[in-house]
Amino acid sequence: MAGTDATQSSPIDGASVPRPAIVLVRPQLAENIGATARAMANCALTDLRLVAPRDGWPNPRAIPMAAGATDILESARVFDSLAEALADRHLAWATSARPRNLVKRVTTAKGAARSMAEAVGQGLEVAVVFGPERTGLEMEEVSLCHELVEIPLNPGFASLNLAQAVLLVAYEWYQATAVEDAKVDATAVGGRAGDPGRLPAPMAQVYDFLDHLDAQLDVAGFFRHELMRPAMMRNLQAFIMRAEPTDQDIRTLHGVISVLSGRRRHQLRPSPAAPEQVPESE
Amino acid sequence: MAGTDATQSSPIDGASVPRPAIVLVRPQLAENIGATARAMANCALTDLRLVAPRDGWPNPRAIPMAAGATDILESARVFDSLAEALADRHLAWATSARPRNLVKRVTTAKGAARSMAEAVGQGLEVAVVFGPERTGLEMEEVSLCHELVEIPLNPGFASLNLAQAVLLVAYEWYQATAVEDAKVDATAVGGRAGDPGRLPAPMAQVYDFLDHLDAQLDVAGFFRHELMRPAMMRNLQAFIMRAEPTDQDIRTLHGVISVLSGRRRHQLRPSPAAPEQVPESE
Repeated sequence: MAGTDATQSSPIDGASVPRPAIVLVRPQLAENIGATARAMANCALTDLRLVAPRDGWPNPRAIPMAAGATDILESARVFDSLAEALADRHLAWATSARPRNLVKRVTTAKGAARSMAEAVGQGLEVAVVFGPERTGLEMEEVSLCHELVEIPLNPGFASLNLAQAVLLVAYEWYQATAVEDAKVDATAVGGRAGDPGRLPAPMAQVYDFLDHLDAQLDVAGFFRHELMRPAMMRNLQAFIMRAEPTDQDIRTLHGVISVLSGRRRHQLRPSPAAPEQVPESE
Repeated sequence: MAGTDATQSSPIDGASVPRPAIVLVRPQLAENIGATARAMANCALTDLRLVAPRDGWPNPRAIPMAAGATDILESARVFDSLAEALADRHLAWATSARPRNLVKRVTTAKGAARSMAEAVGQGLEVAVVFGPERTGLEMEEVSLCHELVEIPLNPGFASLNLAQAVLLVAYEWYQATAVEDAKVDATAVGGRAGDPGRLPAPMAQVYDFLDHLDAQLDVAGFFRHELMRPAMMRNLQAFIMRAEPTDQDIRTLHGVISVLSGRRRHQLRPSPAAPEQVPESE
């Protein structure tokens, strides 16, 4: 996975941007609080609130699982009740299985993320509330929140670790907020990794290589019948264009063709001492 | 969070629906393999493949972290190399930081999920490949896959636990496949053009061609120094994988290599009357 670059700031860094608070209600294992901090940091969230943590707070067992997100642990605030933890918020989403006797609007993680992004854009303060491991939120606690979040998962195996649930909700929030739809789609379609200089080669270079390939295949007798030539070259061209060859790819491919056909050419030449044609690549 | 209801089946349950394989390359901690199985079960994935797990396999330390997803652990298959693990796949996505000297298309977890859902809909077998904890995939391994997945996260804190990375990719796949909302969105992404029969070749065929190319380049003296060989082959592999070669492309490429190196081979033979090696393409 992508590594951390501490010199880079998140697109949503800066104190001026309000972000959702993550509220853990009666968390049992300090390790899960640490892992929650890590998941929050992954998604540029910073405001962690703990309601009556079972083993007290602070707790050194949280630190290793935070994997460096210790500033979030250090600034975490402890509250006696969920109502107190949510007092300064405008909207809160509860992550919970659907309670049988409580009427709540239910949304997905993505739906909640979009609503949160919209609310934050309107200057509202928001929170997402997670219940204790195993038991989850009590109905009373769910009733203190505005909407219910259900993360769409395999109904035959939906049990998530606490920090994994936080990660999925925070991830969706980050996608909705920091990753513009257009950017995501552009990356999905045409993004490229590598040096900035390693972009697709000018098409003239590619066509020049295709000519080289065509000529060498011709000499080598690849096109058994001239009639086959157009379709065969078209398929090779389509293959090569799909790969969006770079300058260097083209140099390498010239080298491949030259080297493979090299000795044959020597065979035709009077002097076998002629220098080998060598690839220019690398 | 939603609990588990073993009586409910996932919307994509049933043996008839092909699903992405999850490939862990040289995983170090069995606990992370267990947590990966849990994340897979959350998202209705079942095909876990391990390439050279550091501490061997099976490993009882994986079981507690699987939280009940032991059937995935029990059916996990072990391979010696990534190429063997991917041999029966048609398309593979590598999760990795962007390598500096390798040109790969990059997509997001969501973009990869949409592409996978589309490919699976066309009857293709797909995989997502994850590198070892800390070090990630090697450039050679990335070059064996078709595209790179980058999960959009806080660039100041992007380090994910292995199982969390699996969870986010699997979650996006589940959203793209089993959740109706996402299916509508998926139409926004362009697909593969061409005849239905012209889909990517099984990767075993592609790797077999790469071996053929490597051997012929070697004989022809393409690798002037043995030291240059890995980087040069990596670049050629990355180029060829980007093009997502079809069955026919592979046949054509074998033909190209055979024909270009054919006369050289004849030169070495006693009888110049030996039949020309001919391309099988078209």
